[in-house]
Amino acid sequence: MKKQVLTGIKPTGKVHLGNYIGAIKPALELARQESYQPAYFVADYHGLTKIHNKEEMNELSRGIAATWLALGLDPSKAIFYRQSDVPEIFELSWILACFSPKGLMNRAHAYKALAEGNAQAGKEADTGVNMGLFTYPILMASDILLFQTEVVPVGKDQIQHVEIARDIAESFNHTYGVTFTLPHYIVEKETAVLPGLDGRKMSKSYNNTIPLFEEPKKLQKLINKIKTDSSPPAAPKNPDDSIIFSLYKEFASEAKADEMKNRFQSGIGWGEAKKELFEVMNEFLEEPREKYRELMDSPEKLNEILMDGAEKARKKTRPFLQEVKRKIGILHS
Amino acid sequence: MKKQVLTGIKPTGKVHLGNYIGAIKPALELARQESYQPAYFVADYHGLTKIHNKEEMNELSRGIAATWLALGLDPSKAIFYRQSDVPEIFELSWILACFSPKGLMNRAHAYKALAEGNAQAGKEADTGVNMGLFTYPILMASDILLFQTEVVPVGKDQIQHVEIARDIAESFNHTYGVTFTLPHYIVEKETAVLPGLDGRKMSKSYNNTIPLFEEPKKLQKLINKIKTDSSPPAAPKNPDDSIIFSLYKEFASEAKADEMKNRFQSGIGWGEAKKELFEVMNEFLEEPREKYRELMDSPEKLNEILMDGAEKARKKTRPFLQEVKRKIGILHS
Repeated sequence: MKKQVLTGIKPTGKVHLGNYIGAIKPALELARQESYQPAYFVADYHGLTKIHNKEEMNELSRGIAATWLALGLDPSKAIFYRQSDVPEIFELSWILACFSPKGLMNRAHAYKALAEGNAQAGKEADTGVNMGLFTYPILMASDILLFQTEVVPVGKDQIQHVEIARDIAESFNHTYGVTFTLPHYIVEKETAVLPGLDGRKMSKSYNNTIPLFEEPKKLQKLINKIKTDSSPPAAPKNPDDSIIFSLYKEFASEAKADEMKNRFQSGIGWGEAKKELFEVMNEFLEEPREKYRELMDSPEKLNEILMDGAEKARKKTRPFLQEVKRKIGILHS
Repeated sequence: MKKQVLTGIKPTGKVHLGNYIGAIKPALELARQESYQPAYFVADYHGLTKIHNKEEMNELSRGIAATWLALGLDPSKAIFYRQSDVPEIFELSWILACFSPKGLMNRAHAYKALAEGNAQAGKEADTGVNMGLFTYPILMASDILLFQTEVVPVGKDQIQHVEIARDIAESFNHTYGVTFTLPHYIVEKETAVLPGLDGRKMSKSYNNTIPLFEEPKKLQKLINKIKTDSSPPAAPKNPDDSIIFSLYKEFASEAKADEMKNRFQSGIGWGEAKKELFEVMNEFLEEPREKYRELMDSPEKLNEILMDGAEKARKKTRPFLQEVKRKIGILHS
């Protein structure tokens, strides 16, 4: 039996290189392993805790879906759906709430960080905290448990969410007998934090990102902006200490990456290195960029793919929710 | 245009006379007024905050539905449904959570009472509080707002819930333009608290209730247990000071109630008065009791009525939720 693995993708901003290398690429690689049955979803309703603008929500959510498809997610081999197309998630979320001690939410890292930030600023702990933010670990538990997910690949900061899902599942199972599969997490291999244009971590909040599907000319411009030192072209350079090389090896074949490593060590000018980086990135991104553009330009087609995915998802979620409802005595027949 | 009025009925225990006189009777009377379009629902999922037993949930939830139908709720003139059959409620509940400041929940009476009780007992404030309990004002707001409810008849202790629903609706409307109808409450006329067998308020927790659909013999026995004073049969009695008369007038015609009033004032023996009370109650309850029994004995029939009701409800809730989803940018088409 293949193991059910689930990856949620929250719409927060334009997808950049950091997202690709840190999350999308490893998730797609994991799914290629024979032992897993992958499911991916666009966590649009998670985004609603912060995005209160119609156009932004629509654009970001479509953008996320188009990005994953453009980068090779094969909807015939995975379950690929939009959270908002699977109403069972929200009904189960209420059921799980009735088995979630409030203390569990009080201790959730994201909420605690907000409350502490408020306190430090001399404000009431709950200032600006809406109930979507406070309760989203339950919605996340519902995402995970409804699919009887066995494995959730996470970054370190997400471990707690899988643990909360597990706690809630155990509490329910304890009362009604084994119903939910207990999920496990895999922590994604500690990728070196991808540096942005200015050398700090690539992050939307630092405004130092390279958007993934930038036009070639703009992409080249951004690459040219990458901070380098003033060593002369002929001086040997440490590839492992260079933003340019760390990006290069993510897009090049192993052979090409080795070759570039040698060129770094024997001396390569920064201008030349940047040109090579642009070439290899552009070559890799040309096709996905085209596909992304296409999908963004045909909302109906994108919608159709997502609706097909939702139908596939609900073949699992509908009967399973019925089973849960029967166990708690809500379903009478 | 008729005004949409909504009444939710939570499964908590066997329906007793106090429930009937304090809630069911006035709600059915309100619905008979020409100016209202009534909707009633069995709030089974609200019960899940406390009832974690399959058989109990099933039994109580069916019992509530059967009681209302037995007492004259006409499903052809109202929308009568089970909360758990309308999934739109739960999806909207998440949307509303994202517009509910956490502070609003911190200040909800029911939660505050629990937290204060814990504190007084020297426990952590959130001991024994599950997230269903903490967030149920949001689920209630969803119940109300999804039906574009204009009027909610409430007891005094429920006023705050309608105010919370209003606050959330205003916050959403402020962001996306007028979408939700702002609900109003009507406080049910201050009915004198119905006394139980021992003279205290009739309440499950005092174990002094008279179940509504008790068998005639048991009903008679319970009536005989009503506490009375030791005044002799011929002594004049104050009807307004008597549990027996206050029950009598709820079940008798006006003419009969006036007659009984006179008999109290000119002197009636307690035994005689209890006999008369039993007669008038039994006459009134005979048919509903029969109907209740029938419905409880045919779960399929009851289920069919509720499923028809859910279909009627969803004719309203489905398109309205679509409208909401379009406004927030979640629905792309």
